[in-house]
Amino acid sequence: MTDIRDLRGVVPYLPTPLTPGGEVDAEALKRLCDHLIAAGVHGLTPLGSTGEFAYLDFAAKERVVAATVEAAAGRVPVIAGVAATTIRDGVAQANRWAELGADGILAVMEAYFPVPDAGVIAYFTAIADATDRPVTLYTNPNFQRSDLTLDAIDALSHHPNILFVKDASTNTGRLLSILNRTEGRIGVFAASSHITTAVMLIGGRGWLAGPSCIIPRQSVRLFELCEAGKWDEAMTLQRELWAVNQVFARFNLAGAVKAGLRLQGFDCGDPAPPQPALTAEQVAAVRKVLEKVGAL
Amino acid sequence: MTDIRDLRGVVPYLPTPLTPGGEVDAEALKRLCDHLIAAGVHGLTPLGSTGEFAYLDFAAKERVVAATVEAAAGRVPVIAGVAATTIRDGVAQANRWAELGADGILAVMEAYFPVPDAGVIAYFTAIADATDRPVTLYTNPNFQRSDLTLDAIDALSHHPNILFVKDASTNTGRLLSILNRTEGRIGVFAASSHITTAVMLIGGRGWLAGPSCIIPRQSVRLFELCEAGKWDEAMTLQRELWAVNQVFARFNLAGAVKAGLRLQGFDCGDPAPPQPALTAEQVAAVRKVLEKVGAL
Amino acid sequence: MTDIRDLRGVVPYLPTPLTPGGEVDAEALKRLCDHLIAAGVHGLTPLGSTGEFAYLDFAAKERVVAATVEAAAGRVPVIAGVAATTIRDGVAQANRWAELGADGILAVMEAYFPVPDAGVIAYFTAIADATDRPVTLYTNPNFQRSDLTLDAIDALSHHPNILFVKDASTNTGRLLSILNRTEGRIGVFAASSHITTAVMLIGGRGWLAGPSCIIPRQSVRLFELCEAGKWDEAMTLQRELWAVNQVFARFNLAGAVKAGLRLQGFDCGDPAPPQPALTAEQVAAVRKVLEKVGAL
Amino acid sequence: MTDIRDLRGVVPYLPTPLTPGGEVDAEALKRLCDHLIAAGVHGLTPLGSTGEFAYLDFAAKERVVAATVEAAAGRVPVIAGVAATTIRDGVAQANRWAELGADGILAVMEAYFPVPDAGVIAYFTAIADATDRPVTLYTNPNFQRSDLTLDAIDALSHHPNILFVKDASTNTGRLLSILNRTEGRIGVFAASSHITTAVMLIGGRGWLAGPSCIIPRQSVRLFELCEAGKWDEAMTLQRELWAVNQVFARFNLAGAVKAGLRLQGFDCGDPAPPQPALTAEQVAAVRKVLEKVGAL
Repeated sequence: MTDIRDLRGVVPYLPTPLTPGGEVDAEALKRLCDHLIAAGVHGLTPLGSTGEFAYLDFAAKERVVAATVEAAAGRVPVIAGVAATTIRDGVAQANRWAELGADGILAVMEAYFPVPDAGVIAYFTAIADATDRPVTLYTNPNFQRSDLTLDAIDALSHHPNILFVKDASTNTGRLLSILNRTEGRIGVFAASSHITTAVMLIGGRGWLAGPSCIIPRQSVRLFELCEAGKWDEAMTLQRELWAVNQVFARFNLAGAVKAGLRLQGFDCGDPAPPQPALTAEQVAAVRKVLEKVGAL
Repeated sequence: MTDIRDLRGVVPYLPTPLTPGGEVDAEALKRLCDHLIAAGVHGLTPLGSTGEFAYLDFAAKERVVAATVEAAAGRVPVIAGVAATTIRDGVAQANRWAELGADGILAVMEAYFPVPDAGVIAYFTAIADATDRPVTLYTNPNFQRSDLTLDAIDALSHHPNILFVKDASTNTGRLLSILNRTEGRIGVFAASSHITTAVMLIGGRGWLAGPSCIIPRQSVRLFELCEAGKWDEAMTLQRELWAVNQVFARFNLAGAVKAGLRLQGFDCGDPAPPQPALTAEQVAAVRKVLEKVGAL
Repeated sequence: MTDIRDLRGVVPYLPTPLTPGGEVDAEALKRLCDHLIAAGVHGLTPLGSTGEFAYLDFAAKERVVAATVEAAAGRVPVIAGVAATTIRDGVAQANRWAELGADGILAVMEAYFPVPDAGVIAYFTAIADATDRPVTLYTNPNFQRSDLTLDAIDALSHHPNILFVKDASTNTGRLLSILNRTEGRIGVFAASSHITTAVMLIGGRGWLAGPSCIIPRQSVRLFELCEAGKWDEAMTLQRELWAVNQVFARFNLAGAVKAGLRLQGFDCGDPAPPQPALTAEQVAAVRKVLEKVGAL
Repeated sequence: MTDIRDLRGVVPYLPTPLTPGGEVDAEALKRLCDHLIAAGVHGLTPLGSTGEFAYLDFAAKERVVAATVEAAAGRVPVIAGVAATTIRDGVAQANRWAELGADGILAVMEAYFPVPDAGVIAYFTAIADATDRPVTLYTNPNFQRSDLTLDAIDALSHHPNILFVKDASTNTGRLLSILNRTEGRIGVFAASSHITTAVMLIGGRGWLAGPSCIIPRQSVRLFELCEAGKWDEAMTLQRELWAVNQVFARFNLAGAVKAGLRLQGFDCGDPAPPQPALTAEQVAAVRKVLEKVGAL
């Protein structure tokens, strides 16, 4: 397995398969992980946004991490999501995910009241201090109440255990600002809201994203074209695949990925209620897009 | 004790006293409840925004509800906060708080991804169905990612177990829209972001708010003037007290209340990290305001 | 005529009647002014938001002010709207409206790029310096890109020629904050987004608002009840009239007022294209509301 | 001169030079145009955001267009900005700029009240119908109250006289969505908020942007590298130049460009009051960036 410090490539944001009763379906999760690894992905990320981290309690999260680690079986690194409002809870999750065998931590900070930069920096620093697993910062300004400012990212980039940042804004220029500002101290991964080919061009290492679950082979092919500097071929493929990102952004993220996986024979159930499952019409839109890119 | 169905008056949003290690300080909480009841408040609300519900796990919340119920000892109703992203978790909290002796439920819906009105209605309906304790809807559009639309409130007002709504927007006209639309089916309580005298004038029943913890006697006096229709006297007092609401809005809500209570001899610790405690300068601003209204 | 410095009461925000070709229809405007003065309003405000100031050039604005002044004929004060992005243009408008006979200036600042408080203060100060007509500050954070902060309002309240502020936010608490902060230096008028009875209760002087054009008598009656301290009677009427504010907020403001006036026999044309006129269904909603309050 | 229908390349958004008294300084503008054309730019755009269109009246705008056309002298196309709230005013500007010799129209829609898609489409269609000069749609969601939705852009892309779109959001993925959706019917230009190399990679034609005024030669070099498919060399240059975009975004756009030009010997005055000129510290930041990229 690649040392996580050298990680580059396609790292799918895994959905959390749920039974109709709301329990984690560990078998479905393992089957999906096997499928994705067989398709060539370079890592796995349980408990990201697509993994509905905000809809799971601690015990459910434990099951998700344990199942992913077991399925990966050392073939690709597992970067498990930590999301909390308090330092205490964030550190507890990071420590437990490490015990369960996660290779890295993807850390996000939730907030109810606004927290100033000093508090944000304290939160991520405490997590990076608590664990020996490398930390990826994760910021999603569209869905979260706190954001990682450029100043905060710069400050955190000096921590020896903070290696990467995943930015899920739609602002691609911000990624170049991060790269210029941190001068090599932190690697950048794209999200599904960015054109990944463009992010690779400006110096990105790959992407951590939900859509890669339903187009894993196509995503790996796109990554390889970028790595080879075949930008025009990459863009030809990217143009096609962008429709998947668009459908993903239009619907509930977890819902769209779960609907797509069901069409591909990997039933992961529905999003946790009261989140809606996709309507028949929305499922048809997902089907159409997957057919177009040869993923059905 | 007043039947909760007839509730009117001042219902403080309790802070959650925390030890330096982050544990719930039940003794401090009970002492505060005794003090507030002695000052004449008409109910107690643990686990509202001021109670830092977003920063506590299930076990900590259980301790908060149990301590409040014990302290209230049947003298005033306890309306305990339920906040969840999933129906499953919301129902579990409501049932447990009822077992612990809460008289009513204050229900708020958290969300990560946007949820359409049908999902919002399903969430609150499930909670109101699950418990025999009357439910107060709570919406705080400034801090939450989902809001209760007028249509959703109207739909929910037909549920026999949904009695009240607390709206923490700053839009006082919205309260009149709710009252007009629901035609007596739901009672309205103000938040600290509204001028409570104005809300009483338009037909409100009182307020559920954090500042009442640090000015309980003044709040009860204001409520009584409103109930007596002495609007001009009420406004004279309201004008003075508004400075407390302003200071509360300017700083972290839990932080401001905890700072004020410490000045009054009710130490409840600091907000849960990484939320900052108030700076010395901010504490001085709270002190100044409390002195001005005779609360120190 | 009341000295404008003593102004209290109902001051309708006039629509700008337009011919199908887009010219100002001065005769329709004068007829409307006569009607409103006969109904007892206490002043007239051409070129507010409802007056579509953002859709008129300088020459059209001149015609609006001249026609309003002529129609008022000294019976009630005319407070003419000045809206500009530059100090130069703002001052030019204020001077010209004074020459045309306006009794007061209602000043709003437009912006494309954000302007810091110092620039905002400079803009309003320049206008207040340039004219001997008393100035009313106007802020509408819902539709404008710049807002008047509490600090800016406080600074401007010391200018001898700045008398009033009209705040069109929905945040009624902000009005009390302004009153408390400026300690009598500036008078507060409500907008249609506030419950006017509540604003009167907290110390307001009246309201500058579009809906008063279509319910002038009812508005004057409401004002008189407030002035007499008959708060319960006022609220009974307010509850009814609030439906008018709600319909006004739901549709394009100018469109709703023009639709209502057409139903009442005062045809003022449609909003300036590409703003849409109300649909038949929307007109029916306006009609229903007006019938309910006895204004049709 | 290139037929505007074939336009590709660097098209600076010109500032509007103003005298201390607020008059358009046509001589300064012409001198700047000469300088930019000598540096190799492919077109000129007066009256964009950087040109402070929101701060100029019709007569001032006429002087700006006339001076730019005279300076261009047929060497490069002049695409003059039309910005209005009404169709009437938008059409009047477009017709006048065409009379004055503009080769193309850059059309933006201003709004005070929200306008639905049908109104937005009507506005741009009326302008495209009124003139024989090709139209570039311009949308700047950060500073405007109306935005061009993907549906509206698609509808407008079928108009034979609407050729291009410039999008000044920070969302680069949106540009790919536009390209995919319109299937070749409309060409895309980047703004300074995008990484222009990334936009060229995904199929862009160039950029219409303020910073190109102060780094014209570097911008042209970057464009040529992109056109030659030398993406790695392009990124090396892009990384350096991005600092200019960052400084431009941080300060008032017109202010930053005017400050930079003054340092380069092209004094264009200050932004129109009450917009602030850059402080000494901000000018120093601009100077530092320009020195770093060899533009001073």
